[in-house]
Amino acid sequence: MAVLVVGSIAFDALETPYGRVDRTLGGAATYFALAASFFTPVKLVGVVGDDFRERDRAILLGRRIDLRGLVRAPGKTFFWAGRYTDHLNERITLRTELNVFADFNPKLPPAYCACPYVFLANIQPTLQLAVLQQMRRRPRLVALDTMNYWIERTPEELRRTLREIDVLVINDSEARQLAGEHNLLRAATQIFRMGPRTLVVKRGEYGALLMRPDSMFAVPAFPLEQVCDPTGAGDSFAGGFIGYLASVNRINEATLRRAMVYGSVLGSFVVERFGLERLRTLTRTEIHARARQFLRLTRFRL
Amino acid sequence: MAVLVVGSIAFDALETPYGRVDRTLGGAATYFALAASFFTPVKLVGVVGDDFRERDRAILLGRRIDLRGLVRAPGKTFFWAGRYTDHLNERITLRTELNVFADFNPKLPPAYCACPYVFLANIQPTLQLAVLQQMRRRPRLVALDTMNYWIERTPEELRRTLREIDVLVINDSEARQLAGEHNLLRAATQIFRMGPRTLVVKRGEYGALLMRPDSMFAVPAFPLEQVCDPTGAGDSFAGGFIGYLASVNRINEATLRRAMVYGSVLGSFVVERFGLERLRTLTRTEIHARARQFLRLTRFRL
Repeated sequence: MAVLVVGSIAFDALETPYGRVDRTLGGAATYFALAASFFTPVKLVGVVGDDFRERDRAILLGRRIDLRGLVRAPGKTFFWAGRYTDHLNERITLRTELNVFADFNPKLPPAYCACPYVFLANIQPTLQLAVLQQMRRRPRLVALDTMNYWIERTPEELRRTLREIDVLVINDSEARQLAGEHNLLRAATQIFRMGPRTLVVKRGEYGALLMRPDSMFAVPAFPLEQVCDPTGAGDSFAGGFIGYLASVNRINEATLRRAMVYGSVLGSFVVERFGLERLRTLTRTEIHARARQFLRLTRFRL
Repeated sequence: MAVLVVGSIAFDALETPYGRVDRTLGGAATYFALAASFFTPVKLVGVVGDDFRERDRAILLGRRIDLRGLVRAPGKTFFWAGRYTDHLNERITLRTELNVFADFNPKLPPAYCACPYVFLANIQPTLQLAVLQQMRRRPRLVALDTMNYWIERTPEELRRTLREIDVLVINDSEARQLAGEHNLLRAATQIFRMGPRTLVVKRGEYGALLMRPDSMFAVPAFPLEQVCDPTGAGDSFAGGFIGYLASVNRINEATLRRAMVYGSVLGSFVVERFGLERLRTLTRTEIHARARQFLRLTRFRL
């Protein structure tokens, strides 16, 4: 089954202790689309400016990514410059130029409106809701990412949107902030009441938790010798997670757990190189091999 | 098989956001001994002062804990006062009074000298080595804990002691500090060269890693609705870990992984109440039930 993703497409300038790039294709929807396309066809909705060239488009072509929803607007593409501190634990935003993204008002091409799996990447909650309202029928699964900015600035709009979704993909500090509760179990209980019955809590180098009202699953992050650039790890995780679920088109405890592992696999690969570099060369054979490594990393018997 | 533990016995004053206790029995050896005694007989070596009463000793009695190595010296028992900040992430030492512990010079009773499993809790590295030198034969397994204080103040002595041990039980920031390397995989490679071929890296609320030159195992922390007091979690983890290994008297990948789970189980229980309170009421039935919960928390199939 196909996955619809709506979100940012950007050019990023990145500095980490391991090097820098001045301008590389990025954005939540881009990372998500590439990651998910290893599992299932993706329909992308986003906006780019005049500076988005053929060679940028080429990164998305030749994969199962439908680009009919990729709109070109006059002006420049969203630009983000950031720096990671010594151990990549902290991210400092150096510049944010919204450019054409400031007026992003996602319109679904007709061919997108029956997509059974939807990922609403981190954008203004009202826009996320507006995407859902364009669907011809209720999708099988709607997942959403958000961030501290919207939790603080547009809490009412976010609450309204959360009522309509199935899966909230969020990092641990945001989950705590959204629930106003430090303890993750109690925070999850609060969030279940807001709408989503499945919570994916990302914990960076510590892995991720799948939380549902009657079950919980923990997956570690894959220990790597070298983390080069954490940009896009969360969106690639979401791409592996939703992409896998859409590919099997079955949502139960077993497939959700496997989806968590494939999300972790994609997240672990993307950070090995700058920007999208690692996703561009990644193969399905490598993905399945690392999934088996996750099994070896976590398996025990009593 | 029996486990020998050498380390501190203390009275603690604890403050957390959930309450306070002015004086409660604690110390690394105490937590370790109680935790390990659920699995196997324990031989304890430590020193207490005149203020160690019968009711304190009663906490250790009636369990499989051999107290012939518990020495009473004139003066007061080691006293530690600490406070945990809001989310229990940070521990502030308010007072440390070494008292009789300042002259601690562990002497093994003859009956202890052939103990096949040894845990050297966090004390001066030269004293840890002196314990090993009193053993009649090389124990089957020697595990050691240490801390930033010894890594910084007595690096040579620590290096000398590390050459003689099998398992280093340490938290992630200490592993990084000891190796002078932030990346945990590379830090582990450095530490293997110092002596221990098995590294247990404790990561608090994020769980623990078992690292060996040719394998790795990750176990999450058990998500709890309420963490009351983190004191003793690491030593209780070590008690569950070594206690389990000694009980099966077989050291291989499968038993080490299971030991990590039992370590996590004991660590997860102890933080539910202040001080030793939870360990005092804990049952083996509860331990095994929680181990099965760890299985449900982590299990997936590809």
